[in-house]
Parts: sequence; structure tokens; C-alpha cells
Amino acid sequence: MSSFPAHLLSVRDLTRESAIKILDTALELSRSSDGNIKKLPTLRGRAIVNLFYEDSTRTRISFETAAKRLSADVINFSAKGSSVSKGESLKDTALTLQAMGADAVIIRHWASGAPQRLAHSGWIKGPVINAGDGTHEHPTQALLDAFTMRERFGSLGSGLDGLNVGIVGDILHSRVARSNVFLLHLLGARVRLIAPPTLLPVGIELWPCDLSYRLDQSMNDLDVVMSLRIQKERMDQGFLPSEREFSRHYGLNADRLSMLKSGSVIMHPGPMNRGVEIDAASADSEQSLITNQVTNGIFIRMAVLYLLLAGIPLKEVAHS
Amino acid sequence: MSSFPAHLLSVRDLTRESAIKILDTALELSRSSDGNIKKLPTLRGRAIVNLFYEDSTRTRISFETAAKRLSADVINFSAKGSSVSKGESLKDTALTLQAMGADAVIIRHWASGAPQRLAHSGWIKGPVINAGDGTHEHPTQALLDAFTMRERFGSLGSGLDGLNVGIVGDILHSRVARSNVFLLHLLGARVRLIAPPTLLPVGIELWPCDLSYRLDQSMNDLDVVMSLRIQKERMDQGFLPSEREFSRHYGLNADRLSMLKSGSVIMHPGPMNRGVEIDAASADSEQSLITNQVTNGIFIRMAVLYLLLAGIPLKEVAHS
Amino acid sequence: MSSFPAHLLSVRDLTRESAIKILDTALELSRSSDGNIKKLPTLRGRAIVNLFYEDSTRTRISFETAAKRLSADVINFSAKGSSVSKGESLKDTALTLQAMGADAVIIRHWASGAPQRLAHSGWIKGPVINAGDGTHEHPTQALLDAFTMRERFGSLGSGLDGLNVGIVGDILHSRVARSNVFLLHLLGARVRLIAPPTLLPVGIELWPCDLSYRLDQSMNDLDVVMSLRIQKERMDQGFLPSEREFSRHYGLNADRLSMLKSGSVIMHPGPMNRGVEIDAASADSEQSLITNQVTNGIFIRMAVLYLLLAGIPLKEVAHS
Repeated sequence: MSSFPAHLLSVRDLTRESAIKILDTALELSRSSDGNIKKLPTLRGRAIVNLFYEDSTRTRISFETAAKRLSADVINFSAKGSSVSKGESLKDTALTLQAMGADAVIIRHWASGAPQRLAHSGWIKGPVINAGDGTHEHPTQALLDAFTMRERFGSLGSGLDGLNVGIVGDILHSRVARSNVFLLHLLGARVRLIAPPTLLPVGIELWPCDLSYRLDQSMNDLDVVMSLRIQKERMDQGFLPSEREFSRHYGLNADRLSMLKSGSVIMHPGPMNRGVEIDAASADSEQSLITNQVTNGIFIRMAVLYLLLAGIPLKEVAHS
Repeated sequence: MSSFPAHLLSVRDLTRESAIKILDTALELSRSSDGNIKKLPTLRGRAIVNLFYEDSTRTRISFETAAKRLSADVINFSAKGSSVSKGESLKDTALTLQAMGADAVIIRHWASGAPQRLAHSGWIKGPVINAGDGTHEHPTQALLDAFTMRERFGSLGSGLDGLNVGIVGDILHSRVARSNVFLLHLLGARVRLIAPPTLLPVGIELWPCDLSYRLDQSMNDLDVVMSLRIQKERMDQGFLPSEREFSRHYGLNADRLSMLKSGSVIMHPGPMNRGVEIDAASADSEQSLITNQVTNGIFIRMAVLYLLLAGIPLKEVAHS
Repeated sequence: MSSFPAHLLSVRDLTRESAIKILDTALELSRSSDGNIKKLPTLRGRAIVNLFYEDSTRTRISFETAAKRLSADVINFSAKGSSVSKGESLKDTALTLQAMGADAVIIRHWASGAPQRLAHSGWIKGPVINAGDGTHEHPTQALLDAFTMRERFGSLGSGLDGLNVGIVGDILHSRVARSNVFLLHLLGARVRLIAPPTLLPVGIELWPCDLSYRLDQSMNDLDVVMSLRIQKERMDQGFLPSEREFSRHYGLNADRLSMLKSGSVIMHPGPMNRGVEIDAASADSEQSLITNQVTNGIFIRMAVLYLLLAGIPLKEVAHS
């Protein structure tokens, strides 16, 4: 594991080998959870801090659950109502957490780049895990998405070579899209972004993916269609036509699902706006892997914590 | 235990037998806590979620303490500041918790019926426990109240046959009153509701209890007088006369306590408005079982978690 | 340990002997944390409540981390959004926590004296630990400061005899200053308070310390210079000249650090206003013990919890 990074800040820090290592470790962990033993002693006595500058209950409890299943102690540090809201700098918060003996810091921040700053300024000695920063990256989301795709289309040790994945909706504001594009490409998938021009970021021509403005034309080429959450406040900012317009052109619904090849699946990172980017029937359809994504999120986060903190072969630990 | 329900949503799901089973289990658990061993390994590795759509620190920490004494991991999910506040449906929140591997969900909701919906829609596989829903039910509160009464007036294996219980105050808005009426009746007690007509719900003539508008006339008939919290905001809505008027007719105070039969007791679900529905001297009197209620709340919640999740005889577990 | 108090409310409850006992226990605990074993089984099964009437994430997570390293269960009770905010009295909250089986209560309160009231009214049977009350005391802060000084200038079993400590800034509003003055004096240090007259409390002539209005004149006499946080809202209340004026006369900066004797150190209880009472270069200088203070806060809080709750020799417990 000499190539495994010290932190998980961006999918772009991963090699294909280290990405597959994470997926394989998550798979092993998911198997050990199939039986009655849900809790491993691996990280007993380790203190893991959830440092959240933005509310995100889903992501927080996913990491918290993952850490507790590895027997770690979890400290939740919400920036709201803390010294942070009195103007404490990220540096001083970091130095404080380091001095308190935090073994790892999971950070969610509204500012793109904050996790990098935390990891590379020498303030924190242990691993830093990016749980979403601004419009930049959300690497564990991309990893759980890749894991979910591989669970359906691949196997232990493999990548996602040749898989056709479409990502639909608000690419511009989505750290999920950005992390997915680079990770899926690394794993060998072909990615197509599908969105109106107003929802594509500047510079996208440099991303390793195709572009399309039309969802219907793509449906029957794709193995995976990933719908992104539309943030309703964007409507008012002129990025989007009306909710209904958006839904008509880019929403997942029964008509569009019928265009999918047999065996193709749909995904969504949650939380969904049912009726906007995805309708209820699609979300709950047989093609939907949405709850699988949530389940796999726990295994991916366990794997990441395990690989960053334990750094020793799983077999030895699980049986200790 | 074939009659034991899969969830605890309403006291009306309980048979007399299953209700007594809960009280007896709580009694066993309270005895095992008398010694030095406060923590049992019963639910080690189980993840229990406190899903709270309303603030209720008391109820939350009572369940949290109960779960931790059984060695479970507790995840607190407050709807405030979560994706719920961004409009996520109960369904999607439930599917998420299920997918994350929640072994049980304890739900507090402002909407009557939300726990039923959560339990019966197939979203959650594990047990759902109602920790208070709208003006509907609060079954663990009624169970801890019954336990507290039995501790004084009954014994292991028994119900509350022939006990005279008065419940005083804002019946209209009280899930505590509703759950108590049905549970106490099931256990054989005679219940009298005592309130001004404006604070009685429509349809109350179908409840298995007597009614009275006058507290003083009842005091010397009752073994237990349970005072309910008055929510001050009701005053402004025309349900109540002035605080002082209410207090004069329905408040517990030294004069009224002197009307009680010897051996009778008073109770209150908390938090109290001292000086409104109960005065300080009464709350702290020898007849008051108010802190017993709080203590017993832990044992009842341990028993409910134990019976719903472990489903095996306590003796075997406690000694494992 | 017959002289050890039942609670930790004020440094004035400590004898020199019991204060040194805390420092020595913290030192032992810090040594046992040097190895791989960060977690001791000492308080397994004990429930410790963080009862916080003021936000203070740093102090809360320091106590939470300390308690978890001793294997206790921690219940966080924030007054915000709880029955407290609906007007529940401290008494009823306390009776509730006691009834729930809280083994110790750590209280932070905006009102000076609240911890004393909690401890001495018979509401709570277990130990009460003051985590900061109004402008009164913050005893674990003073203990961690003393520990940090002794780590540099003293040794196991010793006090701080003859050490020269200056405390600079807003003494008037600082519970940290007050606790430090009395504890450091008890341990044999000579304390000098350095502040403008508007930031000194009435009655300060009775405190066991010297006073000065001029920082520059003191710098080369002091072994330790402790800078206090300036709360910016005080500026508007007329207690302070401008931020810049204050900084010029009382701020720590490179010029002032150069006046220190060799071997002297600077400290700050955090969170810092970098650029106001201390500049960035000073905070991060070699003379700064600020992160040591944070680290030592964990050990001091472990020691206090241990001594109040376990009351048996550490050696026996650590090896059980």
C-alpha cells in the first residue's frame, strides 16, 4: 500500500490501484457485516472528529456509523454555536483538535479547498477526510457510487472498464459530479454529463468526459444514469428555467426509464426532490440503486477510515 | 412472547399480557442496576437512531441512556438543520436510516400518526418506537407511569386492578393523557379525567374513563393524582382562563394534598411549570413520585428496547 | 485523599495537597497515553452529563474526550432547544439528571454560582464539575494552566513555588484569570495582573497578587505571560479603547517577546483573537505553550473525573 495517500481530499489523489483497494476493502467489510457481527474492534480507542462547517446530517451520521462500527469514539464538532462562529480561524480549530489528540478529522466545509488547507498546513498530523467542500469534491460519495456500480457490473479487484455512465442535472454546483467524473474515468468508465448549458462549469472541456444537452438521446446508451439534486434556490438565480421545465427535459420518470437498456440502473446521491429531478416511481423502481448507495456509503467510509488509520491487513485486525 | 408486537407505536397495540411483560422486564432490569453493574452487553453492536422532529432533550437523553446501558450505539438525528429541513420526506429519511443499518428507530414527531406511517410502510425493517407523536400517543411515558404506580401499589406480574387514578389538566392536547387512559384501563385501573370542558377532546365519551370538571371533589377518592403540563401558549388561544384561575381550580398545592387519602401519591410527566399546574411544595412533597417517574423511564425504555430487539430471555443475556 | 473535595466548583475548594494530587494524577495519565493504549476502562458504565447553558464546543469536547478515554458514556445536554428553554428551572433539570442516574454532571452556565447551587442543594448526589460559570471560575482551565507551567518549570509532586506569572488583559470579565490567581497563589507562584484600570474588578486589592497597568515594564520579570481573550463586544461597552490601542499596550507581539527572559513562555486559554491580544507570530512561536494547554486539558479533565468518580489508586485501575 505504498501508493495509498495519507489523506482523502480529492479523488484526484488516488491511483487506479488505490481506488480499487478502497473498493475491495469496503467489499470485505460488507461481507463481515453480513453475519451477526456488525462491530469490529479495529479502531478501539481512536478519536475521530466530525468537523462540520455545513449541516449535513446524512453525511455526518454515515461517517459516525462507520466509525462506531470500527469501535472508534466519535466527537461531533459543529461550527454552529462554537468558537468558530465567534471568528476562530480554521488554523486554530485544527491546532486545538490536534492538541486534543484527534486521530482523524472528517471535514465538511462550505469553502472549496478547506480540507486541503487543513491537511497540508501541518496543523493536523492524522489523516484528513474531505466530506464535501464547496463546489469542489466529495470523494467518499464518488467512491460509494463506484462501489455501487461495481457491485452490479463488476467484481472484486476490478475497475469499471467500459461502463457507460451519464450524470444529469446541475453539474455546475455539484461536487458529487466533479468527484464522480474523475474517479469513474480513473476506473475506466466512460462518463457523459447531461445538462443545460447554464448548469455546466467553465473549463469543462478539460474534464475527461463527454457532454450532452439532451437526456432522451442518451438514455439507451447508458448503463448507469445518475440524477443530481437540484437545489431549489438556484431557480431564482437564473441558472434554471422553471422546476417544471427542468423536470420535463432532465427529470427521471417512467417514460425515460422505459428507454433504458435492459439491466441499466439509476442512481441519486440524495436527498432527492421527488417530482423535480426524479419522480417517485423512478426513485422506488427496480432499476433504482439509491438505497444501495446509502448502505454502501457506510462500507466505503469504514474502508477509508480503516485504510487511513489502521494501515494493516484487514484479516489480522478483524480477528484480533 | 408470541403476543409481543413488532413495534411500540401505541399502547393500544398491547395486550394486558404484553404490557405486564414490559413492566416485569423493566423491574428485572432495575434490580440488575442496583448493584455496581449498570451496563449490560445485550445490544452491543446494534445501532439505534433517535429521529427527533421536535426538540425533547429529556426524552432523547432518557432513550439514549437506556440504549447505552444496553451497550448499543446511539445516533442522534435531529430534523433541525438536516435534509429534513430542506424538504426531505419521512419516506426518504426512513429509507436512508434503513439503508445505513439502523437496528431500531425511536421517533418523536409533531404529526400524530408519523410513527405508524414509519412502521407500516415497509421503509424500516427493524422496530419503531413512538417517543411522542402530535397529540396522539406517548406509550413509553404511559408505561413508565404504570410502572411507577405498580412499584407503589402492586408487584411483579400484577396489573393495577382497582387502582383509582385521576389525570388533571390539559387533556385535549396531551398525548400523555391519551396513552395513560388506555394503558391504565388495560391494566385494570379506574381512570378519571379532571379538566375544564374546553380542555377535553371531542369523542372523549368513548374513552374508558370517567370525567369530572372539579378536582376538589375527586381528591379523596384517588390513589394517584397525575398533573399534566400546561403549555402556556394555550392560554392565548382561548383554551384556558388565566394561569391563576387554572391554578386555583386545577393546580396541585398543599391544601389539595391534604385532601388525599393516606398513601395516595401525585405524579407529573415533566417538565413542570412550578406554580401553575403544581406548586413547588407539592412537587417536592413526600407524596410526589415525580423523580421516580424519571428513573423508571430509563428502565421502561431499556425493557422496550430489549424486548423489541433482543427477544430472548433476559437471564441468558445478562450473564453472557 | 481524605482532603479531596466531593465536587470541583472552585479552585478555592482545593488545598495545596489536593491540587498537586490532581496535577500528579494528570501526569500519570499523560504517561499512560504515550503508548498505544489511549483508553482506560476506569469509568466503564458510568454516565457523565455535559450540561451546557452556554455554547462552548472546545470545553465540551475536551471533557467529552476525557470521559470517553476513561470509557465513560457521555450524554450531551445543551440547554438550547430543551425544556430549559421552555423555562424549566435548574432544580428540575438537576433532579431529572439525578433520577436518570447521571454519575457526574459537568456544568457550564452563564450565571456565576450555578455550579455551587447545583452541588449544594441536594439535587445531585454525584460530583459536580464547574466548566465555567459567569465571570466567576473555570477551575479545570486553571488546573491545566498550572499543569502546563509545571511541565516546563517543575516536576511530579511539586508546586510552582517562586514562579513569576503575569496575566494580561480583560481581568474584569475573566473567570480564567480569577481561577488562575487563586490556584497559582496556592501553588506558590507570584502572580501579577496587567491590565488597564477599566478592566480590573472591584475588590481586586484583596486578591493574592500584584497589579500593573504597564505590560512592557513586566516582561523581563516574568517566567510566564498569560494573555487573555478580549471579547470584542466589550469594546462597544466602553471598557476598552480601540482594538488597536489595546493591542499596542497589551498585545503580545515579536517586540514584546524579545523582552522575555530566556526560557520564559507565553500562554493563552483560547480561542484567540489573532492580531488583537496576541499576534500570529507570537501564538506560533517557540515560547508559546498554547497547544500544550489544549493537550493538557484532556489529562486534567481525565484526572478530575478519575479522582471524583473512581477514588481509588490509579495503578490498580489502569491494569484491571
